Amino acid sequence: MMDRDRQPYAVQGDRRWREEIPLIEWAQRIQKVELRNKISKAQEAARFFRNGMVVATSGTALSGYPREVFGALRERIQKGGSLKIDLLCAGPLGPEIEDALVEGGGLRRRIGTVGSKLLRQAINRGEVGFLEGKTGKVCQYARRGYYGKIDVAVIEASGINEKGEIIPATCVYDAPEWLDLASSVIIEINLRRPLEVEGLHDIYYPERGHCIPLNHPLERIGSPYIPLDVAKIRHIVFSEREDRNVPESPPGERTLRIAENIGNFLKKEKLQQGELPPLEVGIGDVLNGFLSSLTRSDLSSLIFYQAVATDPILDLIDAGRVEGVSCNSLRFSASALNRFFSRLEHYRRYFVFRPVTLTNSAEILGRFGVLAVNSGLEADIQGQINSSHSKGSQLIGGIAGSYDFARNSSVSIFALPSTIQQGKISRIVPRVSHVDHTEHEVDVLITEHGIADLRALEPYERARRIIEECADPKFREGLKTYVEKARTRPGRVPILLEDEF
Amino acid sequence: MMDRDRQPYAVQGDRRWREEIPLIEWAQRIQKVELRNKISKAQEAARFFRNGMVVATSGTALSGYPREVFGALRERIQKGGSLKIDLLCAGPLGPEIEDALVEGGGLRRRIGTVGSKLLRQAINRGEVGFLEGKTGKVCQYARRGYYGKIDVAVIEASGINEKGEIIPATCVYDAPEWLDLASSVIIEINLRRPLEVEGLHDIYYPERGHCIPLNHPLERIGSPYIPLDVAKIRHIVFSEREDRNVPESPPGERTLRIAENIGNFLKKEKLQQGELPPLEVGIGDVLNGFLSSLTRSDLSSLIFYQAVATDPILDLIDAGRVEGVSCNSLRFSASALNRFFSRLEHYRRYFVFRPVTLTNSAEILGRFGVLAVNSGLEADIQGQINSSHSKGSQLIGGIAGSYDFARNSSVSIFALPSTIQQGKISRIVPRVSHVDHTEHEVDVLITEHGIADLRALEPYERARRIIEECADPKFREGLKTYVEKARTRPGRVPILLEDEF
Repeated sequence: MMDRDRQPYAVQGDRRWREEIPLIEWAQRIQKVELRNKISKAQEAARFFRNGMVVATSGTALSGYPREVFGALRERIQKGGSLKIDLLCAGPLGPEIEDALVEGGGLRRRIGTVGSKLLRQAINRGEVGFLEGKTGKVCQYARRGYYGKIDVAVIEASGINEKGEIIPATCVYDAPEWLDLASSVIIEINLRRPLEVEGLHDIYYPERGHCIPLNHPLERIGSPYIPLDVAKIRHIVFSEREDRNVPESPPGERTLRIAENIGNFLKKEKLQQGELPPLEVGIGDVLNGFLSSLTRSDLSSLIFYQAVATDPILDLIDAGRVEGVSCNSLRFSASALNRFFSRLEHYRRYFVFRPVTLTNSAEILGRFGVLAVNSGLEADIQGQINSSHSKGSQLIGGIAGSYDFARNSSVSIFALPSTIQQGKISRIVPRVSHVDHTEHEVDVLITEHGIADLRALEPYERARRIIEECADPKFREGLKTYVEKARTRPGRVPILLEDEF
Repeated sequence: MMDRDRQPYAVQGDRRWREEIPLIEWAQRIQKVELRNKISKAQEAARFFRNGMVVATSGTALSGYPREVFGALRERIQKGGSLKIDLLCAGPLGPEIEDALVEGGGLRRRIGTVGSKLLRQAINRGEVGFLEGKTGKVCQYARRGYYGKIDVAVIEASGINEKGEIIPATCVYDAPEWLDLASSVIIEINLRRPLEVEGLHDIYYPERGHCIPLNHPLERIGSPYIPLDVAKIRHIVFSEREDRNVPESPPGERTLRIAENIGNFLKKEKLQQGELPPLEVGIGDVLNGFLSSLTRSDLSSLIFYQAVATDPILDLIDAGRVEGVSCNSLRFSASALNRFFSRLEHYRRYFVFRPVTLTNSAEILGRFGVLAVNSGLEADIQGQINSSHSKGSQLIGGIAGSYDFARNSSVSIFALPSTIQQGKISRIVPRVSHVDHTEHEVDVLITEHGIADLRALEPYERARRIIEECADPKFREGLKTYVEKARTRPGRVPILLEDEF
């Protein structure tokens, strides 16, 4: 309603757009002519938000999210436009959204997971609410109405085709769900994404009660475009904001040792089972270090079936190790994005970008027997993993996609350094302070010291294996003493409750 | 090898068989003529077992397992035939197998879950090993070799067809996997199972990388028979053993209140979501009480998609509440079995018996959005569930199928009484001593006092909801004090670690 009668010239009159974005580009980016009157400045789009709205977006911690609209929203809030929103997004987002909203006091509740520092701190102080989401289930919960009505979806795209369908950019993730569920839609077209990304995407909506007909991790079963009721589009905003770069630091010696241990486990597994299933590798320095190390291993024909693709994937592709990557988005730094776009015709054959409802689907993960490699904050001698809360209570990050992968993989590996704080504190503890993954979800634990293959072991065997293979040597005696003391009590699990309360 | 040249007359010469089982019955039960020379007495079959063998079987805690062969094995062991086996079975078994083997010292390790008291005690004393299995993954792990080579599968059947395929009886469960994987096979034909059960079964082997083409919970996608390489059959034994009866006791007042609360939740859920998805209901007195109560509710057209069907299902069918039941076996007492068989033509249209690889499949549970109702030993204010170990260490029962259902349902309910020991001890605790289901797997907690719908709640909200709705009133103050004390510490989860060590 509010947009009716607004003409493109209102925007063309703006100096920046007129000078910097030629009309030809508009035409290419918005192929459905009738939609061109939705072109707005970000400031206009930002005025669409109202206090109490549930706002859904999509993105990774590094890219894929709409910076321009949220930047303008931040400005509006800073100028005293008092409003608070619920921000719904399955993945973690960058500080330009999360922290910006927190600084302005514009965030009532974050639903999904957390990517940025100020938001995390505000949640721990109780100033911002946080509904921790399991990546594969956030969309399902939203669809069932658990988070309330979704008022507006703000989604980055590379363009809109002549049917009014969205041509995604580097991030599909939960965008198809939000575009379907939200009452209103704001599209942010990122001019730094070449339109040649068209065709990389595979958009498919799983239907309750029906098989997802995916019979190979790299097969395409959907459309390259996200369908959209164009009547819901309120604004189309252009963005040329620069992507975030992250300081590259070569992996340390400890990370290299963890990486080597994961690699050795995979080689052994391949030998025993005849082949490696598709891999899922989570995020973080340790796992990036592991991915980088694979360029030097003799594993090849790797298929990745995971949530997000990180920078080292490009090295792996160039080293000839990769058959293909199914993911929901690129979680690339600016330099990796540039590299990807500058050789798009080379890289495109390796990638398929899908909705999170496929990448994190229990149905598909189980079907392909994906082998999952994730990290955590601490592990205990039972084999339980805390991946989210320090001291049982302070949020570090949400469980996010590790929920889906640990539970539905054929082999679930957790890899982490054995200590923190320069070796002063052991990450291998008698009992984790917060359980994100039970013993039932942890098949293999890996640190820089070794590999504890826990499959088909009983609780005391698991404990001893973890202590001997994974704990830092200087903490082993203490942990063994705990186990020996527990052994004198009745029962089959090494745990001392009497000392706890 | 050992069976070659043995003729049926060797068995026919045995008085009991000759007098009690007419030849016509042999012919009906073993339609493949060449297999009739495998007919053996149980004592002969029992001599097949060797020390160290991995023996796989199938069954529920009440029926479906081969009593005759294991009875004879027990006798052999009692007579001094020193041997120990590993017993592999995804489901819990009755005392005629589990306890009998334990009493004779014949069990080295139980793999799967535990159904019987003496076995549980022996495991807790460390005399018998126990590899706790997640029902939906036991077969997968076995297939990957985690439990070693399976030497022999001992499987109950109602007969063998002319192709040498197994006509199952009341239990499919993991039998198709064991018949495929084991080097040798012993079939126990239960003459108390009418051959008219033929056709009730739907045997399908999921294939890695391929969609399971099940698009309705009650659809049939497989064969009524279990395929089998007949060269692996070592013995065919007949059994007429009586089924176990269990003393029926009417549900107590507390169980009725829990049942009413579950029923009320389901009605509300149906109202909100438009329809109820297929239900999974676990085992135990509380859940049996709930099922019984449904005969008096106004819920109808119920579809069950679960592991085992229990006695109250027959009442529900007769009360006209049920559209159909997909399960892997009947966990019926003797009286319910008699009732089922005596009106088989009436009941058969409601049942489809499938392998556990379908009933507990993450792929299928997610696809149908099954609503899961399970029970547990204790719950905590975070919403975590301990369903297996008392005081964190003493085995009560394995996690079994609740693993699959809690993780892959669309709504996961846990229902349990709020106290034990005549109300002296609260089952709602600050922190469970053993975590089988994390907060991520528990959507709704129900006791006789009320319903705590935890969906889209934050940790402190969850804690308060659980205390107010589910804890016994006399324990609420203590739990609230814990929460208030935790609230004074930094962080977002109500937990006191400082007091624990």
